[in-house]
Amino acid sequence: MTNRYDSQKMNALVNKIYQAYGFSKENSQKIADALIYTDLHGITSHGVQRLALYDRFIQNGKIRIDSHPEIEKETDVSAVIDANFGSGQLNGMYSMGVAIEKAKAHGVGIVTTKRSGHYGIAGYYANLAAEQGLIGMSSCNSRPGMIPTNAKKAFIGTNPIAFAMPAKPHNFIFDAATTVVPQGKIEVYRKQEKDLPALWVAKEGNQPVYDHTDTATLDSLRDPEANVGIAPLGGITEETGGHKGYGLGIMVEVFTSILSLGNTSAEISASDVETGPCQSFIAIDPAIFGDSEKIIDKFSRYLEDLRQLTAVPGKEVYVHGDKEQLAYQDRKKNGIEIDDKTIMEIKAIADRLHVDTQPYFVS
Amino acid sequence: MTNRYDSQKMNALVNKIYQAYGFSKENSQKIADALIYTDLHGITSHGVQRLALYDRFIQNGKIRIDSHPEIEKETDVSAVIDANFGSGQLNGMYSMGVAIEKAKAHGVGIVTTKRSGHYGIAGYYANLAAEQGLIGMSSCNSRPGMIPTNAKKAFIGTNPIAFAMPAKPHNFIFDAATTVVPQGKIEVYRKQEKDLPALWVAKEGNQPVYDHTDTATLDSLRDPEANVGIAPLGGITEETGGHKGYGLGIMVEVFTSILSLGNTSAEISASDVETGPCQSFIAIDPAIFGDSEKIIDKFSRYLEDLRQLTAVPGKEVYVHGDKEQLAYQDRKKNGIEIDDKTIMEIKAIADRLHVDTQPYFVS
Repeated sequence: MTNRYDSQKMNALVNKIYQAYGFSKENSQKIADALIYTDLHGITSHGVQRLALYDRFIQNGKIRIDSHPEIEKETDVSAVIDANFGSGQLNGMYSMGVAIEKAKAHGVGIVTTKRSGHYGIAGYYANLAAEQGLIGMSSCNSRPGMIPTNAKKAFIGTNPIAFAMPAKPHNFIFDAATTVVPQGKIEVYRKQEKDLPALWVAKEGNQPVYDHTDTATLDSLRDPEANVGIAPLGGITEETGGHKGYGLGIMVEVFTSILSLGNTSAEISASDVETGPCQSFIAIDPAIFGDSEKIIDKFSRYLEDLRQLTAVPGKEVYVHGDKEQLAYQDRKKNGIEIDDKTIMEIKAIADRLHVDTQPYFVS
Repeated sequence: MTNRYDSQKMNALVNKIYQAYGFSKENSQKIADALIYTDLHGITSHGVQRLALYDRFIQNGKIRIDSHPEIEKETDVSAVIDANFGSGQLNGMYSMGVAIEKAKAHGVGIVTTKRSGHYGIAGYYANLAAEQGLIGMSSCNSRPGMIPTNAKKAFIGTNPIAFAMPAKPHNFIFDAATTVVPQGKIEVYRKQEKDLPALWVAKEGNQPVYDHTDTATLDSLRDPEANVGIAPLGGITEETGGHKGYGLGIMVEVFTSILSLGNTSAEISASDVETGPCQSFIAIDPAIFGDSEKIIDKFSRYLEDLRQLTAVPGKEVYVHGDKEQLAYQDRKKNGIEIDDKTIMEIKAIADRLHVDTQPYFVS
């Protein structure tokens, strides 16, 4: 079952939980804002649903509470940042801030960050740049999830690409795992006790898995030794374009782990606290190409033309960011959607930290 | 039927044909080199197979023989180039040259080029940067080919993303349409009289087309009014990730037609010679992030780890650029593969231009 919860109350609860871990009030607020932003925009797989994962990482020392990102090397248009295993959300906001500063001064900023933590949705960071009139991009690697074309097991992360661009009436925000789906989406289907609706997961490289009750297989998605993984965007065969998702995953690896000399997806281990994901953050000022206003106007008209295309019966043509904008208007008014299992996980974390959940669960 | 032809002889023939159109000897050589490079690397859909298309464009004035690209606006890290409807190959080489120069001087170069012509494979231009130790990227838009998710007809080009990075023993070159397949691949299947092996083409937004003899439907892939198009990478449904290919197609549109204020895919018409495709060229010097040699070594080891993964029975795990490298070694020695229909098209062009094909067709 899924219920609705007031976003401001849930924001306050997440803040309390992070303060109970030992994060400053200001940093707890930043983390709560990023997670609740995600739920408000309807991306339930990456909002408070992720608290249980972060909790495990904070407990085993993979996310370090008193850690701060440091610039290791920089030029006018680039930086390499050592995140020192701090919270992914805090590192992400800091790193995109550096990229934005460079783009404002020199037109472009490309930042690659290593030894970081899971940072939630890549689109959140891309949009930080778009909110300031810039093009924003962000990607991250993660523990292996994607099966390279023709391989038997996962080796590359779900490695998303996010791209945000200012537009009217609201920003264009594209944010997509280079696998068919991110890990979080499979978790949501399992929590909702639904079978997987397409070839998302494969055993032995090419045997489809749909059954949500196949716990042994689906649990081993996080096991680097198991011959189980998620199909690249495009599927498990070259005929359907799977080698393209695989290639995009490698491209993300270059901007995250290769340029920073950090850990590649396959080098990240859940237990080894001296390994962690890498992220990239790019900001580009459209004004280096021409009149920003004209560029944004042309783009906005283009997106509107897409929305106006004739749709197949019963469907609508949308552009990326539209659904999230509709979800935001709904959630802001009617509350964010959280399934019961996630609520139980949050309760258990709060109880352990002696945070009273009572005031926050009335929607 | 497909036969083998000596690559140097075919290069000389293409050169002669372009000189017969009126291109300079030097420019004809550049165009021949780009096309034969493509065939040598086994990408038959975009090599001399494309001569018939270019011939139509040269004849109707869409590709102008005495035209040169001009820089309209530039900064240390960016340029907007007006290609003045010159040959796409020549514009592409010039524009990537500008990006490379900026990357060598300032770390990054981002170039967007408008009013260009079809430039062949995007990977060729990305690799020009990789050949000089830089990361290279290139994209282009094109007449509508991709059906946006839930729409009934095509509106976005097949908009490829190419990414090249120096590596040992050979460069990593990723080059993929953001549709399941590029237009050229469908043309090759039709010439070989083979049915389409997966859901590449759809009518009315969601009705699959496999039959290669369905001429009426497949011919209308180039008709902007027809309700026929190619599926985005990921397929025609959101469950299989089709909205991701659609979003990547829009991202390519931003870097090509939006930032340059050129023609979007839907604004390019085959008959209106005052419209043309847009392209983007990005070069990044890895040295702005750290020791280039260490970065390239780490990347090369990573690619080798991928190649060494256990494969599903009867298959091999490769990385992007490997197959093309194998094809190159084969074609260099044994000749490039050209189907009979393409040979007939080339003969007809040569005959019209009074170029004697006799010396070139002995393999």
